[in-house]
Amino acid sequence: MKIVIIGAGNLAWHIAPKLKKLGHEIIGVYSRTKKSADLLSKRIGSDSFSDIERIPENADLYIVALHDKAIASIVRQLKFIPKFIAHTSGATPLSAFPVKFKNVGVFYPLQSFSKNRTVKFDSVPFLIESKNTKTKKVLSDLARQFSNNVHFVSSEKRKRVHLAAVFANNFVNHMYSLSAEILQENQLSFDLLKPLIFETAAKIKENHPDKMQTGPARRNDQPVIKEHLKLLRGKKQRKDIYTLLNQSILDKFKVRN
Amino acid sequence: MKIVIIGAGNLAWHIAPKLKKLGHEIIGVYSRTKKSADLLSKRIGSDSFSDIERIPENADLYIVALHDKAIASIVRQLKFIPKFIAHTSGATPLSAFPVKFKNVGVFYPLQSFSKNRTVKFDSVPFLIESKNTKTKKVLSDLARQFSNNVHFVSSEKRKRVHLAAVFANNFVNHMYSLSAEILQENQLSFDLLKPLIFETAAKIKENHPDKMQTGPARRNDQPVIKEHLKLLRGKKQRKDIYTLLNQSILDKFKVRN
Repeated sequence: MKIVIIGAGNLAWHIAPKLKKLGHEIIGVYSRTKKSADLLSKRIGSDSFSDIERIPENADLYIVALHDKAIASIVRQLKFIPKFIAHTSGATPLSAFPVKFKNVGVFYPLQSFSKNRTVKFDSVPFLIESKNTKTKKVLSDLARQFSNNVHFVSSEKRKRVHLAAVFANNFVNHMYSLSAEILQENQLSFDLLKPLIFETAAKIKENHPDKMQTGPARRNDQPVIKEHLKLLRGKKQRKDIYTLLNQSILDKFKVRN
Repeated sequence: MKIVIIGAGNLAWHIAPKLKKLGHEIIGVYSRTKKSADLLSKRIGSDSFSDIERIPENADLYIVALHDKAIASIVRQLKFIPKFIAHTSGATPLSAFPVKFKNVGVFYPLQSFSKNRTVKFDSVPFLIESKNTKTKKVLSDLARQFSNNVHFVSSEKRKRVHLAAVFANNFVNHMYSLSAEILQENQLSFDLLKPLIFETAAKIKENHPDKMQTGPARRNDQPVIKEHLKLLRGKKQRKDIYTLLNQSILDKFKVRN
């Protein structure tokens, strides 16, 4: 397929070269920021555009890899009806596309992408949605070239998956940050916690997290909890987080002393 | 060394066979629950005791692998002065041992242990503390047999490491649980999130988590945040957690729209 990538962020950065490797022709990369468009287009040897009116009209598929806030406003500026067009967002509904676009869909890889990390696409879940059958076929055929983990999920369900991903990814990473802060404040290296962090993730490979829960809240160890709250004095937000998550675990397991 | 293991929980379950493999002689396993003591002692071919008075007095080292709540009360019941004794807890100070015990220490492997998972000890951080130099030598020599990651950390610092570990392990696992609940309520498999969870952990191998933070809070994407809060209606505790962690990320990065 002839493909145009709209967006040059982390996701576009990984998807574009993979598409090329799969034998597709990337005929252009668009980004509002010329520098970003150039950087990615150089990576894959395609044209780059920072003026939306210059996006070629003859692509088979337009992949819109933009932040949620930008999707609707950017696609509305396209001056033609794309043959097929899909966005890559978990949180944005299919209805973000103008009604006059007929062959619209969603092509959402449920993974976190960073420029400095390689991505193994073959296990990444792709969540596909489309307004019609022929778009479904185009997007699912493409997704299956990336991965053996392709699912059809409605906008309503997809936004719940995205919410769950905020807990499993964004909030988890924030927990890492908070633990790093505590260590740094005590002149201790964050490296100390890395084996524990990797094991915590690895454990849920074959076990439900509910079964893997440990810690003072899980066993309702009030002396340790009180000691922790003492250590958190003067750090209101961090203490509030501790208290709330502690209570949530206590409630989940309803441990009695 | 001749070693007695006091406790038969997850940590004892992994440490005892490893000690045997390293050439030490486990002369006994004590647990208040006879069944647990038997199960572990069978695993390593040692004697087992559920009566504290029967614990042999001639061991070189007693390793107390009990929950924090039990450590002080159990060791107080020993009718003799152990040659060397150490507990394995992050949260309990060295002072939990009776003053009359001279050679006391802490032998704290900073890892999460489950019976159904094998542990690679060689990268596990061991946090060592002791009341005197000869105990320090005994415990650090032993720790170095387990791992190349041995540190001397005071009780005061160790309890802060333990607090950090609650965020990085217990609270992270609870985030996994909450994300699994959201998926299950929508008839979606938790497997969908696993590649994301593993990548979230893998990313901090070489990057500080602050640099890896993504998501609606990181970019202050208010429309997505509002949509998430709508989805969380009727789930007060989960919504409170979302709101608090979202705010904590916003504050950390002080993103302005």
